[in-house]
Amino acid sequence: MSRNSIGKNLVITSFGESHGSFVGAVIDGFPAGLSISSEDLQLEMNRRRPGQSALTTQRSETDEVQIISGVFEGKTLGTPIAILIPNQDVRSDDYLHLKDVYRPGHADLLYDVKYGHRDWRGGGRSSARITAAWVAAGALAKQWLNNQSSVNINAWVSQIATIKAPSIVAVTRDEIESSAVRCPHPESSNQMIVLIEEAKSNGDSLGGKITCLIEGLPQGLGEPVFGKLNAILGQYILNLNAVKGISFGDGFDAAELSGSNHNDEWIFREEFGKIGTRTNHSGGIIGGMSTGEPVKMEIAFKPTSTIAKEQTTVNASFEEVKLQAKGRHDPCVLPRAVPIVEALCYLAIMDLWLESPAKL
Amino acid sequence: MSRNSIGKNLVITSFGESHGSFVGAVIDGFPAGLSISSEDLQLEMNRRRPGQSALTTQRSETDEVQIISGVFEGKTLGTPIAILIPNQDVRSDDYLHLKDVYRPGHADLLYDVKYGHRDWRGGGRSSARITAAWVAAGALAKQWLNNQSSVNINAWVSQIATIKAPSIVAVTRDEIESSAVRCPHPESSNQMIVLIEEAKSNGDSLGGKITCLIEGLPQGLGEPVFGKLNAILGQYILNLNAVKGISFGDGFDAAELSGSNHNDEWIFREEFGKIGTRTNHSGGIIGGMSTGEPVKMEIAFKPTSTIAKEQTTVNASFEEVKLQAKGRHDPCVLPRAVPIVEALCYLAIMDLWLESPAKL
Amino acid sequence: MSRNSIGKNLVITSFGESHGSFVGAVIDGFPAGLSISSEDLQLEMNRRRPGQSALTTQRSETDEVQIISGVFEGKTLGTPIAILIPNQDVRSDDYLHLKDVYRPGHADLLYDVKYGHRDWRGGGRSSARITAAWVAAGALAKQWLNNQSSVNINAWVSQIATIKAPSIVAVTRDEIESSAVRCPHPESSNQMIVLIEEAKSNGDSLGGKITCLIEGLPQGLGEPVFGKLNAILGQYILNLNAVKGISFGDGFDAAELSGSNHNDEWIFREEFGKIGTRTNHSGGIIGGMSTGEPVKMEIAFKPTSTIAKEQTTVNASFEEVKLQAKGRHDPCVLPRAVPIVEALCYLAIMDLWLESPAKL
Amino acid sequence: MSRNSIGKNLVITSFGESHGSFVGAVIDGFPAGLSISSEDLQLEMNRRRPGQSALTTQRSETDEVQIISGVFEGKTLGTPIAILIPNQDVRSDDYLHLKDVYRPGHADLLYDVKYGHRDWRGGGRSSARITAAWVAAGALAKQWLNNQSSVNINAWVSQIATIKAPSIVAVTRDEIESSAVRCPHPESSNQMIVLIEEAKSNGDSLGGKITCLIEGLPQGLGEPVFGKLNAILGQYILNLNAVKGISFGDGFDAAELSGSNHNDEWIFREEFGKIGTRTNHSGGIIGGMSTGEPVKMEIAFKPTSTIAKEQTTVNASFEEVKLQAKGRHDPCVLPRAVPIVEALCYLAIMDLWLESPAKL
Repeated sequence: MSRNSIGKNLVITSFGESHGSFVGAVIDGFPAGLSISSEDLQLEMNRRRPGQSALTTQRSETDEVQIISGVFEGKTLGTPIAILIPNQDVRSDDYLHLKDVYRPGHADLLYDVKYGHRDWRGGGRSSARITAAWVAAGALAKQWLNNQSSVNINAWVSQIATIKAPSIVAVTRDEIESSAVRCPHPESSNQMIVLIEEAKSNGDSLGGKITCLIEGLPQGLGEPVFGKLNAILGQYILNLNAVKGISFGDGFDAAELSGSNHNDEWIFREEFGKIGTRTNHSGGIIGGMSTGEPVKMEIAFKPTSTIAKEQTTVNASFEEVKLQAKGRHDPCVLPRAVPIVEALCYLAIMDLWLESPAKL
Repeated sequence: MSRNSIGKNLVITSFGESHGSFVGAVIDGFPAGLSISSEDLQLEMNRRRPGQSALTTQRSETDEVQIISGVFEGKTLGTPIAILIPNQDVRSDDYLHLKDVYRPGHADLLYDVKYGHRDWRGGGRSSARITAAWVAAGALAKQWLNNQSSVNINAWVSQIATIKAPSIVAVTRDEIESSAVRCPHPESSNQMIVLIEEAKSNGDSLGGKITCLIEGLPQGLGEPVFGKLNAILGQYILNLNAVKGISFGDGFDAAELSGSNHNDEWIFREEFGKIGTRTNHSGGIIGGMSTGEPVKMEIAFKPTSTIAKEQTTVNASFEEVKLQAKGRHDPCVLPRAVPIVEALCYLAIMDLWLESPAKL
Repeated sequence: MSRNSIGKNLVITSFGESHGSFVGAVIDGFPAGLSISSEDLQLEMNRRRPGQSALTTQRSETDEVQIISGVFEGKTLGTPIAILIPNQDVRSDDYLHLKDVYRPGHADLLYDVKYGHRDWRGGGRSSARITAAWVAAGALAKQWLNNQSSVNINAWVSQIATIKAPSIVAVTRDEIESSAVRCPHPESSNQMIVLIEEAKSNGDSLGGKITCLIEGLPQGLGEPVFGKLNAILGQYILNLNAVKGISFGDGFDAAELSGSNHNDEWIFREEFGKIGTRTNHSGGIIGGMSTGEPVKMEIAFKPTSTIAKEQTTVNASFEEVKLQAKGRHDPCVLPRAVPIVEALCYLAIMDLWLESPAKL
Repeated sequence: MSRNSIGKNLVITSFGESHGSFVGAVIDGFPAGLSISSEDLQLEMNRRRPGQSALTTQRSETDEVQIISGVFEGKTLGTPIAILIPNQDVRSDDYLHLKDVYRPGHADLLYDVKYGHRDWRGGGRSSARITAAWVAAGALAKQWLNNQSSVNINAWVSQIATIKAPSIVAVTRDEIESSAVRCPHPESSNQMIVLIEEAKSNGDSLGGKITCLIEGLPQGLGEPVFGKLNAILGQYILNLNAVKGISFGDGFDAAELSGSNHNDEWIFREEFGKIGTRTNHSGGIIGGMSTGEPVKMEIAFKPTSTIAKEQTTVNASFEEVKLQAKGRHDPCVLPRAVPIVEALCYLAIMDLWLESPAKL
């Protein structure tokens, strides 16, 4: 088991540093015979791409994906798919002054302690830049799942700082994408944009919450007891930079309910010829397996650690220093984190899907 | 990778059904040479044991651990430690009426869908009974870590239904254990007890929140990028029955802060001769690695699914039926979940510890 | 990945010491719904059981398998199957004189070096006693494969010391079992028996070779590139005590052939409606995948390390000592190794089978 | 666990097809802080490189290794090392006539059966071209082991067809490299060269045997029971193209010895202050762990499957066809397999080394 790999049946191995020549991934276990759509792949890349709008980092990357193995004549071979994404717009000099300074909220110090040698350019391995390859991998997983199931995953920004969008039951990709912050509730979206612009001009940053809905799962996806659907999803998503919490269904609110209020009664749905639940407090997962109802997750993000405002910290000589960020960064990562969350969910779901095709 | 195993270096393989002859676990990767204290082991078992008080299930189990391999003359051999815990007080007849009924909040239906054959006695494999062996394994991990580090893990009940104990920075094991619900804040504890008794007499159940503090970690524990400390802890804990959410540090509250408020400034702590953080909003984890500050987690539990109150559900013939639980159960699982959470954390920490002994 | 586990989809976790209370295994990933035949299971156990004949160790074990989880009402649940086999006829005192002596050919010294603490009774963890649980696990894999395929695995003794049985193309279980040494060629069998009896009376021991034939595989079993069928089989079998070599098809003799002699030409077999090979020099595996022709392996075993003859060695105080074995042991392990080899092959094949059910 | 990955602590993930843009590998778990010598790396590449001499394939590749992550300022970062090796001299048209023909000894048919879609250019994924990246990875492992241990691995050609070099106890790298076929016994080397040239001119190919010696191991390397040193080495090497067998120590000859002849008596070696064995029949491994004596392996290779001689086979329409190879190929792969065998051994040893640094 590699610490830069994730998955059992569909194994993603991540590599690359922020200012190296490439970031990338190897996808192993991807079935043969799927015709890959490069357009759909690039579409997902564009959603995560820096420089999309005034609200995001101005690093300019086209993020064109190079698939260097595992695909032949446009179709997957069943062999490992290796993906490269060039790092083009690197300005490593912006980071020279950070070479020996430990930025607050960043892991520079811990990389030094753990490894003794660190790539200080653009955050090196700890940069969210490496998630570009995850989005590419997730886009392939999405194409595969779309091809043979009705699984559909939508994530959106449901909170920025104190602005909370009202709870939403159904949402379309278009509603999400029509908002610059990927919040499908127009009023909240507008307020969020104002808030982010304000934070940006103050040299500050904001956190928030992403909600994610997985629809169209069959019943019984998830592997008891240490491969529970929620634990697998959690494992993928908690490895995403800036995530500080995850919950399923009613989540932390479930703590306040009584059993008679929280329990989802089973009902027979004649129209579908199968059993479902009357309510969905459990968020589509019971006993670690999908119930067939939508899986609902909420994911908490801390505010971006890199801020322009002056901060006090220490350097490698243990001296107190003042710090003002010069590197390009997002005042709020959430809009660009939406496609990453979706990608991680597609990868997690496909991993479990490959394990029990016959049983479900 | 087995779906009933967890860990890379310290691998726990879980087995057993609620009403089988035993539940158990095999622990592989446990270093040789540790003298095992059976008393300390049994102490942890007693904290999880059913029948501790009027607030818990009346199933009576002594939960005496049988170690059948891997320990010789009281010391670990470095070979797999196999643990058996007998299931003695089983009353399978209590479950006969549930053989073909799908209990709300339980995974009976999903086991039927996924496996086609199900042990309906006491919930079978989906029962929290199987966590008895996890506590035993965790107790051994605790002994090993205590033997060579200052790692100390304390979990406690911080919320039952709407009763929330005030935020606590430091807490002792005695303060936790002196409360029947394992809430170290006496006033809240009393209110929680009243609430649980009330729920019990109403045939209902309650959820809540457990807070867990891991102190004494070195800097740099956790493996970028898919073995982040928070993701590993999350993976272990999200596999625990009834858990619906987990957060680290300020968790979901971090979403509301700005970067300048959330960032933990690095400071040099002269008294310890090392760098720490002035605040601990990040909950002791940055970039997936321990900062050396206490790791703080909050874990949301749904209310117990088994309730005495009448509920409507369906049976295996798709007919609507009324259901009233007869099996013994906890009106609130949180007090007994405290030692399980601690055990899972000890196992997760030891797994990572074994990976980087030289580096830290 | 646990070092006492093997397999990806069907994961066997082994535990136990020779003179502990039990040896055992946990089998994870075994599909639900198979009716287990205890008789067939016990039959395989009896083939490996000590005390079968005058040629084997006189340790007397009934080796009755206790299945303590994963099977309910005689059918597998899809949950981990935990197997216990009691160690009954232990005479640990026979080993007291070996407590501090490093037996030639045995790993006592290396366990001391590696672990610092060692169970010296009956060889502890290094004893072939632990393979009893492997045979039980293999017997279940056999039942599962028999239930849905025409896979058939037969191993037999093809050489003891200098007695080599003529090469055999087809063989029945009965022909193998009718020989006390499990050599289906009667004349060779008789010579082998004489040789073993002679070695026994001399206080010496013998090695030999086991041939194994796997018939009825579909084409394409085996996973390029690091899960090649031969590598997987090799991984399982090279972990078996006393094995010093393994080869496939023409094996070491292939080294002497030219390409035009060794290449197996593909032919269309009209009667089966599929492609096969005219010859089978490759032993049923090309490019790491099954060709559909019989897989043929040869496995070399060193002579039993425990001998009654006096030997010179050193003890834990680095002093030269004379040693004469007192513990019970086999003068030649091969007859009892036959069912173990078969069991390991069934486990390896089932592991791969579970990975590509749809593709083959 | 990915089927294109190998290792537990040092995980190599292989990717690439013979005529794709690159073959490559990701190395995860490689410790930080090692200064990489590009010269030493390229030296190993050159030993495997095609076009070395008249005896090898005339495909011309410089095999310059591109390290695109995990190394910064010439030193390893502790993050994944991704390696690319361009495929430059591809002549895919040479393979056009093989698009629908199943070459004898090759896995074309089996890829078609298993995956339904196949890269027929140069053998695609099944080509030994992909081992270029293994050699690069092994060269890094060698540098790491050389830096902190006295481990030394030498492989050489000990047999080509019927020419067997006399058994050798010690050998130097220079002696091996001074022979065009990497056989350190000059007389045998000359005979082998003649034989290979003859086979080449006949349009035929030859197999043989490689001997490999691992010196300088500490005692106790290898993990009982399913991570035995011989099983780990076997797992790596049996995944190498054309390997049909592997043996350790006396190997298949051990089958003919009696215990009193085969057992290696333990002796105290005063000059080293530690225990060793008087003889080394076991080939440096007992009970799956290194004894501290040299580990000796013999590896059987079948003759190259691609031959110029006309062969009969079938095509994808099940018709019998005649076939004469046009692609470039080696009449005997063994000389170029020598550095691959060494690389695989370095990777296997380093994987185990990382697991027990403190214990040994």
